[in-house]
Amino acid sequence: MANRTAHPHESWLPEANTATTDFPLTHLPYGAFEHEGQQHLCVAIGSHLLDLHACAASGLLPPTLVEACQAPTLNALMSLGHRSWTLLRETLTTLLHAKADPAKRQAAEAALHSIAGATLAKPIHVPNYTDFYASIHHATRVGQLFRPDQPLLPNYRHIPIGYHGRASSIIPSGTPITRPSGQSRPTDLTAKPNFHPTNALDYELELALYVGQPSLLGSPIPIGAAAHHLFGISLLNDWSARDIQSWEYQPLGPFLAKNFATTVSPWVTPMAALEPFHAPAFHRDSTDPKPLPYLHSISDQKHGSLDVKLEVFLSTKATSANKLQPYLLSNSNAQDLYWTPAQLIAHHTSNGCNLQVGDLLATGTISGPAESSAGCLLELTRNGTQPILLPTGESRTFLEDGDEIILRGSCEAPNHPRIGLGECRATILPAHT
Amino acid sequence: MANRTAHPHESWLPEANTATTDFPLTHLPYGAFEHEGQQHLCVAIGSHLLDLHACAASGLLPPTLVEACQAPTLNALMSLGHRSWTLLRETLTTLLHAKADPAKRQAAEAALHSIAGATLAKPIHVPNYTDFYASIHHATRVGQLFRPDQPLLPNYRHIPIGYHGRASSIIPSGTPITRPSGQSRPTDLTAKPNFHPTNALDYELELALYVGQPSLLGSPIPIGAAAHHLFGISLLNDWSARDIQSWEYQPLGPFLAKNFATTVSPWVTPMAALEPFHAPAFHRDSTDPKPLPYLHSISDQKHGSLDVKLEVFLSTKATSANKLQPYLLSNSNAQDLYWTPAQLIAHHTSNGCNLQVGDLLATGTISGPAESSAGCLLELTRNGTQPILLPTGESRTFLEDGDEIILRGSCEAPNHPRIGLGECRATILPAHT
Repeated sequence: MANRTAHPHESWLPEANTATTDFPLTHLPYGAFEHEGQQHLCVAIGSHLLDLHACAASGLLPPTLVEACQAPTLNALMSLGHRSWTLLRETLTTLLHAKADPAKRQAAEAALHSIAGATLAKPIHVPNYTDFYASIHHATRVGQLFRPDQPLLPNYRHIPIGYHGRASSIIPSGTPITRPSGQSRPTDLTAKPNFHPTNALDYELELALYVGQPSLLGSPIPIGAAAHHLFGISLLNDWSARDIQSWEYQPLGPFLAKNFATTVSPWVTPMAALEPFHAPAFHRDSTDPKPLPYLHSISDQKHGSLDVKLEVFLSTKATSANKLQPYLLSNSNAQDLYWTPAQLIAHHTSNGCNLQVGDLLATGTISGPAESSAGCLLELTRNGTQPILLPTGESRTFLEDGDEIILRGSCEAPNHPRIGLGECRATILPAHT
Repeated sequence: MANRTAHPHESWLPEANTATTDFPLTHLPYGAFEHEGQQHLCVAIGSHLLDLHACAASGLLPPTLVEACQAPTLNALMSLGHRSWTLLRETLTTLLHAKADPAKRQAAEAALHSIAGATLAKPIHVPNYTDFYASIHHATRVGQLFRPDQPLLPNYRHIPIGYHGRASSIIPSGTPITRPSGQSRPTDLTAKPNFHPTNALDYELELALYVGQPSLLGSPIPIGAAAHHLFGISLLNDWSARDIQSWEYQPLGPFLAKNFATTVSPWVTPMAALEPFHAPAFHRDSTDPKPLPYLHSISDQKHGSLDVKLEVFLSTKATSANKLQPYLLSNSNAQDLYWTPAQLIAHHTSNGCNLQVGDLLATGTISGPAESSAGCLLELTRNGTQPILLPTGESRTFLEDGDEIILRGSCEAPNHPRIGLGECRATILPAHT
């Protein structure tokens, strides 16, 4: 069997060779799962995960990678650098390939677990979390709500806007979100604000970019080297309480409106798996300034963007009770971002700010030009003034208790298997009383 | 000698009993220093530091504390909780007291090093850094510069304004600051912004509040329990590039204007040492709203503030060359903050945001009501329009290369030895070319 002709992307696991799987052999995203009280690293293949801790114990991995592959998070592997990332990916690709050595295949089969039966965990320890605002469509539509005369601020097209988020409250997909309470603006500014559970709980559809190669304090990363610092991507939901946000955010930006929870999807797609899915940077027309030199490279302009299709679904108590599919709220594409990942990294470090292994840079809400491609309810419902009607007869302005938000992402390109980023999901629980 | 009458605060180290020392026996701030390639924890006493790693090795510390006292940072000790903090402090106080057991004293003497000869390091690993804006005098004077018609925004007196800072670039006192580069607002908004070394480099005089007891995601800390979560305080300089800040900060707040460096002083004063130096919360007059219930407790209002005198000094190349003392730029007091440390903690967690061991909450610039008590150059020079004249004949609007900023803090109260927070200092290096 090891000698028959096999497609270069064919795995011995048949489910990994279907057109619909998120996790073909060309993907091999990294994750972590709970195993007998420990957290083990793994990769996804078909509907299974391959336990890297067990693979290391079985002698299936190069000796230099054993310790990192038996760590609870990916940070140790990331710290080993590009050569090790490549070595591990090549080893795993060979191990799971249709033409794998039969003895090794047998050992690998013993390290497979069904993803459906596993408890997936947060695979990366995030020392620092930065959230950008890289979608010009999002920035424009949000601006239209609050500054109709000047939707897009004068800095937007020149500088990638970003701010620091809260690392402690980054949680894995599946962890419920307790509705946060906070102050909101009093209708009469001479009155006291109220402190109450948020009435404007929103999601934000984003991508997480994970830093694998660090940088030194005082050493900006040139745009040409910036993409090299990325390890991989996942989906991210930047939960937001809009009523808290609008009252607190001046003059220093969002704080409690965001830091109660940020959900990341369990699978980290390595940059190597994304190679076929790069795209040209945002098309700048005559009204757009050319990026400043520290944000400009020809190669980044040619293919620095990522072609990742994104979808947001809502499942309510009623859709679940009626066994209806989750409702598609919107879809967009990471290609529509105004700034590329390399531009975000070059900008972030342009003042000498250092990046650490595991740092998370989120893109900001990914909205496209169409109304149906808005990546949050603030845009979709025009700040709650235009409710969305659901097939159940329900309507939504913002999220209600029991609602579940599901983000999905996928990449397609001619002559390459489709890959999927899996899901990022969480359900809203009532506020504490 | 162990039997003679000794003052309750008297140490066997005479220098610790002087009226001018920062570090009497009642203080015992924690620090870390470099020792034979390792980082060792220590406490300051007089002009010396006591190596806790060596004390643990010599059997001078309780067995339950040995591992934490031999760790490179204070986080392990902090994680052990209040009982252990108290046990260690009591053990060290007895060990350094004039009536100490002679054999133990001899062993402790072997663990003493001169502070002047030591390389002090950052004693706490900071997982998350939050910067507040708790001085109403600072907020008002900054507001006057940019919004003369409405210096103080409507939310200020109701909600402690804060935002997330960058943990990766928190550095210990003494590390030079490389002048950062960045974009600044073009004079003509139809033109491109320039990317250049900042022309408006500023310091901000702040206190660092370190979290010792963590909290769970989804579990707000009630105001009555909030102070209990603090481990200690130090001085903090929140370096700021004002030209970068004014261009980038809308709508999501400061980012690259701040995250190139934040300097913390080496000594962490435990809350136990601050007990005599508490003060009533900011006096709210009839124009101030009463704090909302989640920010109000009678005990916090009575003595939740800290009476810490603060000073900022500037040393230039010319003051050094002429052997002049550093120039006093301003002085203020942490008592002038509008919000207490407990209010900052209660607010930070009011939405369920979790705190982790080692988290740093900075107060924001501490300015008093007087012009001479402004805690940054933005205020002192009215955004660079009113230069400060120095005794050397030089003038300053913002910081120049070679300038050194020195923050100092101290506490005094009747019948208690004065304590000093030591110094937080750093020199500006030219921008990279």
